[in-house]
Amino acid sequence: MENHKDSQKELEQIAKNTEKKTKIKVSPKDVEDIISAVKTTGNFWQIVNFSQKPIPVIAETIRLLKKYGYIDFENENIKVLEKLEKKFDYIPKFINELICPECQGRGINIKAIGIYEEFFEIQKNRPKPIQQYDQGNITPDSTIARVSMMRLRGDIAKKRIIVLGDDDLVGIALALTKLPEEILVLDIDKRLIDFTNEVAQSRGLKLKAEVFDLRNPLPKEFNRNFDVFVTDPPEAKKAFQTFLQKSIWCLKGVGSVGYIGMTLIDSSLHKWSELQKIILNSGAVITDIIRDFNKYENWDYHQNTLAWKIAPVKSPANTIWYVSAMVRIQIVRKPVAKNTLMKNKDIYIDTESTTT
Amino acid sequence: MENHKDSQKELEQIAKNTEKKTKIKVSPKDVEDIISAVKTTGNFWQIVNFSQKPIPVIAETIRLLKKYGYIDFENENIKVLEKLEKKFDYIPKFINELICPECQGRGINIKAIGIYEEFFEIQKNRPKPIQQYDQGNITPDSTIARVSMMRLRGDIAKKRIIVLGDDDLVGIALALTKLPEEILVLDIDKRLIDFTNEVAQSRGLKLKAEVFDLRNPLPKEFNRNFDVFVTDPPEAKKAFQTFLQKSIWCLKGVGSVGYIGMTLIDSSLHKWSELQKIILNSGAVITDIIRDFNKYENWDYHQNTLAWKIAPVKSPANTIWYVSAMVRIQIVRKPVAKNTLMKNKDIYIDTESTTT
Repeated sequence: MENHKDSQKELEQIAKNTEKKTKIKVSPKDVEDIISAVKTTGNFWQIVNFSQKPIPVIAETIRLLKKYGYIDFENENIKVLEKLEKKFDYIPKFINELICPECQGRGINIKAIGIYEEFFEIQKNRPKPIQQYDQGNITPDSTIARVSMMRLRGDIAKKRIIVLGDDDLVGIALALTKLPEEILVLDIDKRLIDFTNEVAQSRGLKLKAEVFDLRNPLPKEFNRNFDVFVTDPPEAKKAFQTFLQKSIWCLKGVGSVGYIGMTLIDSSLHKWSELQKIILNSGAVITDIIRDFNKYENWDYHQNTLAWKIAPVKSPANTIWYVSAMVRIQIVRKPVAKNTLMKNKDIYIDTESTTT
Repeated sequence: MENHKDSQKELEQIAKNTEKKTKIKVSPKDVEDIISAVKTTGNFWQIVNFSQKPIPVIAETIRLLKKYGYIDFENENIKVLEKLEKKFDYIPKFINELICPECQGRGINIKAIGIYEEFFEIQKNRPKPIQQYDQGNITPDSTIARVSMMRLRGDIAKKRIIVLGDDDLVGIALALTKLPEEILVLDIDKRLIDFTNEVAQSRGLKLKAEVFDLRNPLPKEFNRNFDVFVTDPPEAKKAFQTFLQKSIWCLKGVGSVGYIGMTLIDSSLHKWSELQKIILNSGAVITDIIRDFNKYENWDYHQNTLAWKIAPVKSPANTIWYVSAMVRIQIVRKPVAKNTLMKNKDIYIDTESTTT
């Protein structure tokens, strides 16, 4: 017991020092989660995956753990030392087996919607993610799971749906169900828009895609025009607010729905609480938060990101490690929604986001 | 298209009338969800299960649908008429197959934690739910899933855990993992406390249970004493706030965690938005909302509840229909937490709760 109190104090100390260095809120529980991940894998990106903390927090915690003699680096891998086993003997490994192997933790059966094979074939020719647009697409499984969840919640049939940014090809998957009344995809990347329109045309899908820089105000005719939006907003607080309000501005009103991808890798839980307040203050309620729902394929420009730069060891990211939560919201009262210009500084002022 | 606009107007009208009658906020989307459920099953309790709305809202909507000639009642079942098929042809049935059959939508593999069989045997002798204490227990699968989720999120090993109200036997399941530092179960029902203590004693489990009326202030020594709480709070707004604050008052602080069962059957989404604000204003963030996670076994006193009384048809509730969402919260800043007396009127003033 005395030993356990010592361990607790050590966690608190590491949390405090990490917070001081990163300017991101860090709790002893965060450090515990990182140690649990370190015990599970030696690969830095998998530690990110298991612990689900902002990368600067993980990087600094690992640097401190090394400094205090708990771990060592070996061939770009992280090695647990005896001191860590002793001091933190009670912290268990992450048990991957507790996640449902059938649905990978999403709770969704992606086979029942019946578009998997067609979508899988189509997406093989998708444009590759590029850094200029902060792209990175989720796996085809994740896209189908998103659409399946939308179907399960009654958010597709005869609905007018707007997809704000769509390197995940959610628009195409939605159109393949043949259920929506209208699907509009906006993206800044002409390659994606051309690809989406070509697929739509060649297969006779009810789907329209337009090149649009989402930092600009949206066309007036979008106001109160859609039942559902789908988007992965920027996660800097100010940018999130602007983006969310613009998305909600497109919705018809009470009963309308939004699907939002949100990460814990570019946001701390402390920031999440701020973002959740923004959601509630906009007139919406959060109906679902399913962690690790959207699984991202690794992207080519990973080694040019800040995340790579601050990684304490340069382990390759061979398997999927970047994931995001699927958050569904629904409007419950007259929304607070402005359609404003988003300034570049709004997007990028944030100490927690590093993967763009 | 003209036809669709007509249908939309009709949904709006039914929503408005239902809201007027029930004094609960109702959106056209709510009515749509109920019609989708009506198309899926003729059993009233399964309509509740599929549509996930407060029972007064469903009951009144169904009464209106009958009045307008969309449905009829036959042998205590609800029958869809041609007029409904025509007017709301676009509303699809609920597709149960979209829920992962392996984990029943929870995303959790309950086999990996290795206590299932033992727990299943133990719980066979549990005291039966009684109306006096508003009891109703979740299935053994649901209890194991809850504990598995806690293990997955790193909230069990060496943790001090308080269970506030425990007809679900979460305390016993936690103790079987042999991982927690301390488990304290509080419940008003002496039968449950005796059962829990007997199991603990006969199997040498680290688990203590005490008879306690949770409306009373908690003993002073509980303050900042626990890492994790588990509870299914009352859902009337004032009672929820009092109960949540008391639970948080037991937690050590930033990084501590709470597991809360929350329903959409005794709460509307509009009330959920108020309850979520209470959570955020208490210094916590919502980290997970997994719908339909806790599945309740049918209880003997069902026919003595308000829910039964207001049901428009008296279909038997033969299969599981009452479910709740698993909501996990984590403290991210100095909590706002008072340990106050809860008055009876706080608990019961609510138009939405009918199953107690």
